[in-house]
Amino acid sequence: MFTCTGYAATSADTRLEPFAFERRDPRADDVEIEIVYCGVCHSDLHQARNEWRNTLYPCVPGHEIVGRVTRVGAEVRDFKPGDLAAVGCMVDSCRTCTACREGLEQYCEPGFTGTYNGPEQGTGANTFGGYSSHIVVDRHFVLHVPEGLDLAGVAPLLCAGVTTWSPLRRWGAGPGKKVGIVGLGGLGHMGVKLAHALGAHVVLFTTSPGKEADARRLGADEVVISKDAEQMGRHAESFDLIVDTVAAQHDINAYLGLLKRDCTLVQVGAPEKPLDVNVFSVIWRRRNFAGSLIGGIAETQEMLDFCGKHGITADIEMIPIDQIETAYSRMLKSDVKYRFVIDMASLPKAA
Amino acid sequence: MFTCTGYAATSADTRLEPFAFERRDPRADDVEIEIVYCGVCHSDLHQARNEWRNTLYPCVPGHEIVGRVTRVGAEVRDFKPGDLAAVGCMVDSCRTCTACREGLEQYCEPGFTGTYNGPEQGTGANTFGGYSSHIVVDRHFVLHVPEGLDLAGVAPLLCAGVTTWSPLRRWGAGPGKKVGIVGLGGLGHMGVKLAHALGAHVVLFTTSPGKEADARRLGADEVVISKDAEQMGRHAESFDLIVDTVAAQHDINAYLGLLKRDCTLVQVGAPEKPLDVNVFSVIWRRRNFAGSLIGGIAETQEMLDFCGKHGITADIEMIPIDQIETAYSRMLKSDVKYRFVIDMASLPKAA
Repeated sequence: MFTCTGYAATSADTRLEPFAFERRDPRADDVEIEIVYCGVCHSDLHQARNEWRNTLYPCVPGHEIVGRVTRVGAEVRDFKPGDLAAVGCMVDSCRTCTACREGLEQYCEPGFTGTYNGPEQGTGANTFGGYSSHIVVDRHFVLHVPEGLDLAGVAPLLCAGVTTWSPLRRWGAGPGKKVGIVGLGGLGHMGVKLAHALGAHVVLFTTSPGKEADARRLGADEVVISKDAEQMGRHAESFDLIVDTVAAQHDINAYLGLLKRDCTLVQVGAPEKPLDVNVFSVIWRRRNFAGSLIGGIAETQEMLDFCGKHGITADIEMIPIDQIETAYSRMLKSDVKYRFVIDMASLPKAA
Repeated sequence: MFTCTGYAATSADTRLEPFAFERRDPRADDVEIEIVYCGVCHSDLHQARNEWRNTLYPCVPGHEIVGRVTRVGAEVRDFKPGDLAAVGCMVDSCRTCTACREGLEQYCEPGFTGTYNGPEQGTGANTFGGYSSHIVVDRHFVLHVPEGLDLAGVAPLLCAGVTTWSPLRRWGAGPGKKVGIVGLGGLGHMGVKLAHALGAHVVLFTTSPGKEADARRLGADEVVISKDAEQMGRHAESFDLIVDTVAAQHDINAYLGLLKRDCTLVQVGAPEKPLDVNVFSVIWRRRNFAGSLIGGIAETQEMLDFCGKHGITADIEMIPIDQIETAYSRMLKSDVKYRFVIDMASLPKAA
């Protein structure tokens, strides 16, 4: 065991504060990473504040992790000290169920181990995330980071990136396809960049006219103000795929009606309350309303390699870790373009 | 033109009554059919009473039509007088859009022509359905009826049959697949029979314990009382496909949770108000909530041929046409096993 420094919430109503804790020394299949940057995901805030009512305290959030390998276990062949490495939302899974065998660890039937809040396979113990100096992870869950990208902008690819990448790939975004992205936040801005780089015709839906120029800069071919029925109507029955990143309550029937026959709206944002689905929206053109959860390890690597090839990173705002509570407050107001990333050099050397 | 007798509603609040009207003589591509039986679909009642607020009066309902060919046009090669023939929910479509070219006339982009309530292609005129002595239909929309089946029981295959057949085929019901059918009414009882004959393991969901024996007789391998959480829980994450035939408001999240990863719940019953979909129901196992509308002409013929081979017809209760209002009242109480069929010999000879 060795001592890490990090930031943790110790209860639902306390601020995140410096925290010292133990991590295991690398086992035979483990990679130890010194964390350089960690992205700030809305889930971090939900978990820290126990909004999903399952938080294990102390809670060290963070699952958009990039850094450099410091130690590797005896059986690790594909990472060596000094390599760039990344960790996303998962650090383990059962490895034996159908989903795991298909490389879809995010759908692990007994349940994957989250990068924070566990549960550790077998023991059910807590896990500590990326708001920390180091992390030790089984190599199966460690990603290679392509050279040549801005490392801070890579961090959000590990959650926001793969969460949009996975449905874009599964439902065939590419040349000749018209793809809608609903919402221009952390997920949405990655959806626009990735769908554009995949060669699709990209339409960004937003409630904010002020986001139009930015959406075009990020790769949108068209921007639709979703409150404008006339603009929406011009796109009726024309989309091959819509990826909806909005986590607030909203009318998805307005988007279902924009799909061609047999096409799919994939929800990746997770509104707390159910969404009303007008059954005729799906019956009349045999449409699908589907969901998608982050992505598997193999497709996360695929996405990182694609981003390396196409020079794609997230648009970020760097913060020192002692600004995390301010960042949470601003995130709640959607006041970030488009992801906060913590500079881990700002961690106190000893907690 | 020639005169037909039939039954029509002349306004939303009048009973169906005898009605004489003109039909065209067969054109080159037309088939004239003397109607022997016509099934009674819930849509007939919705349309007669203007519950969809689009009814053209007078309204002659009926789109589950079987009979014998009496005349054919000069270009018709595959039907001759005396042949059995059937007509379902559609009598025309644009024939040129992508859907029509794919044999999916039910999704015709400009819109198909309903067997009743039109609109006729080009003119937008009303059409008159199967509660009548004859019908004249373009041969493309006329089906062959296999020999050896009880003809009255064939009639409901034209709507209830193909509406369940189409999603069962599209989403791969067959050997090794566990298929759920929700609701045991006109559609549901056909879903059970067809899924069973396709070789699937069939589970019928019903709120009525009294339907269990009948469900097993129709082909269900298991029956689940959907109000019983313990019974429902035993089937969690185990279904390859669920076809939901219920047109009343109900909790579909309870069914979404029974699907395996990447599997689909297809709604064919059409509740008037939106259904609440818990987004986590679809995100956690990348599930799909889809709709499906009747079926195309080619797949309707495929279904009829399949039914001929497997000896499948609907379970019906025969009525004379002057009992149609009683039948509607009983249908509203789900008091029918499982479809009313009108014996067209009961039509008055002159209206």
